[in-house]
Amino acid sequence: MNRFRIALCQLPVGPERRGNLRAAEAMIWEAKHKEVDLVVLPEMFACPYQQERFPEYAETVDGEIAQLLCAWARTGAFYLVGGSFPERAMDGRLYNTCLVVDPHGRIVANHRKVHLFDVELSQGVFFQESAVLSAGNALTTIQMGRVKAGIGICYDLRFPEYSRLLTLDGAEILIFPGAFNPVTGPAHWELLLRARAVDNQAFVVGVSPAPVAGLSYQAYGHSMAVDPWGNVLLDAGKEPAIHIVELDFELLEKVRDELPVLRHRRADLYSITSRSEEDV
Amino acid sequence: MNRFRIALCQLPVGPERRGNLRAAEAMIWEAKHKEVDLVVLPEMFACPYQQERFPEYAETVDGEIAQLLCAWARTGAFYLVGGSFPERAMDGRLYNTCLVVDPHGRIVANHRKVHLFDVELSQGVFFQESAVLSAGNALTTIQMGRVKAGIGICYDLRFPEYSRLLTLDGAEILIFPGAFNPVTGPAHWELLLRARAVDNQAFVVGVSPAPVAGLSYQAYGHSMAVDPWGNVLLDAGKEPAIHIVELDFELLEKVRDELPVLRHRRADLYSITSRSEEDV
Repeated sequence: MNRFRIALCQLPVGPERRGNLRAAEAMIWEAKHKEVDLVVLPEMFACPYQQERFPEYAETVDGEIAQLLCAWARTGAFYLVGGSFPERAMDGRLYNTCLVVDPHGRIVANHRKVHLFDVELSQGVFFQESAVLSAGNALTTIQMGRVKAGIGICYDLRFPEYSRLLTLDGAEILIFPGAFNPVTGPAHWELLLRARAVDNQAFVVGVSPAPVAGLSYQAYGHSMAVDPWGNVLLDAGKEPAIHIVELDFELLEKVRDELPVLRHRRADLYSITSRSEEDV
Repeated sequence: MNRFRIALCQLPVGPERRGNLRAAEAMIWEAKHKEVDLVVLPEMFACPYQQERFPEYAETVDGEIAQLLCAWARTGAFYLVGGSFPERAMDGRLYNTCLVVDPHGRIVANHRKVHLFDVELSQGVFFQESAVLSAGNALTTIQMGRVKAGIGICYDLRFPEYSRLLTLDGAEILIFPGAFNPVTGPAHWELLLRARAVDNQAFVVGVSPAPVAGLSYQAYGHSMAVDPWGNVLLDAGKEPAIHIVELDFELLEKVRDELPVLRHRRADLYSITSRSEEDV
């Protein structure tokens, strides 16, 4: 048995923190009955993706959200990639942070978004995360039972170096809570998830909020799982829902054996190295 | 005027060297009348892609193919990316080599395929280039008038490090003569070309032979040009033909300005470096 079941929670994320947490809890409850190894929540699952409101929603890594994530993972006895929330660090800085919790309810990783989304698209998308957030300084991989996972958040997906380094560190699943938008979503979300899968011959999972009418920032939705050959295993479309995918790691071994790009890298000609440091 | 016109020559490549050269010459003749800045030929445009026959077809970099390429570029007054041919080096080694010729008919670059294609797919594709060929040891970029191009051959496309290094060296067009096959072509050719374009916000051009009935190795065809936003500008399908695309470098500047991923790379956290050496 070389299978691994993941629940992708495409939550509707509205302006009300309390309602968002209730929606998450309801979906976690559903996941409990599906015998999954891992549950993944979307980026900023408890607050709308409006950077000017991040300070108001920010909390510490032992705040209510962290406590809920730990309780949810423990009662479900699954790993939980807790999407992300605005984290307020000890020194007052804010981060876009993903907590990973093990089936005993212990926080086992804390990924702070490494690449901040500072863009100004002529199609009307403007964002400057760096005005509010600080960037994380660590690449995050973590053992989940027999599977090693790498974690990135949204914009981290655009940087092939990042996913490559997670892979070279042993990751066989790359997990990206994200919230692409109506411009970048149709243009690049599926392409990038599939490209990271094929480049690294890894499973790739992206989990987005469902779009919610009336919000200033419309998430793209389309939470997705891709296999190491680049096939889309799941495309969640636009509706809020939980979706289960079962990953077959024999396929990963087969792809890496038959078309061994990771072995064919010319490490004598080029090198890619991380200078990752643990965040304080 | 910030435009650059490229002819993609999707040649039918059969078993007869003489016939292949005549077909190439005929298409080059067509290109002369189209006011292009650059002409691109496919990988192994003069011989079928059968590794066991490479020794028989091999020639030196001042052999007949090199001379023809120089003559073609000079008479057309365009840059010519000469697909590739099996090169026999001074020391007797064989390479899969792409010559680049300037509009004066001078060879200005010599790219030897860096990543050799050693694969064994359960769908029936078996190749072991390394049994016959040696690997190149240089990453190739070259100035073509006002545009800087990076060159790779086929399997080089699968390695994100390679295209990133070409881009960091200033390339704004990545050019890949290639010959994907009926298994890897539908699965990955377009995906990889588009991914390299989006990752590097560069134009990407892939030029393949057209498939020819009866050959043991069927090329995928689908020569393609992609813009820096990932849009497919041209998909040549399966038929032999010359196709012209016009690249607008203002779009490249716009994309790099609005969504500045190359500036957002975390060079403080990771680095990618080449130890490229010139081939003898």
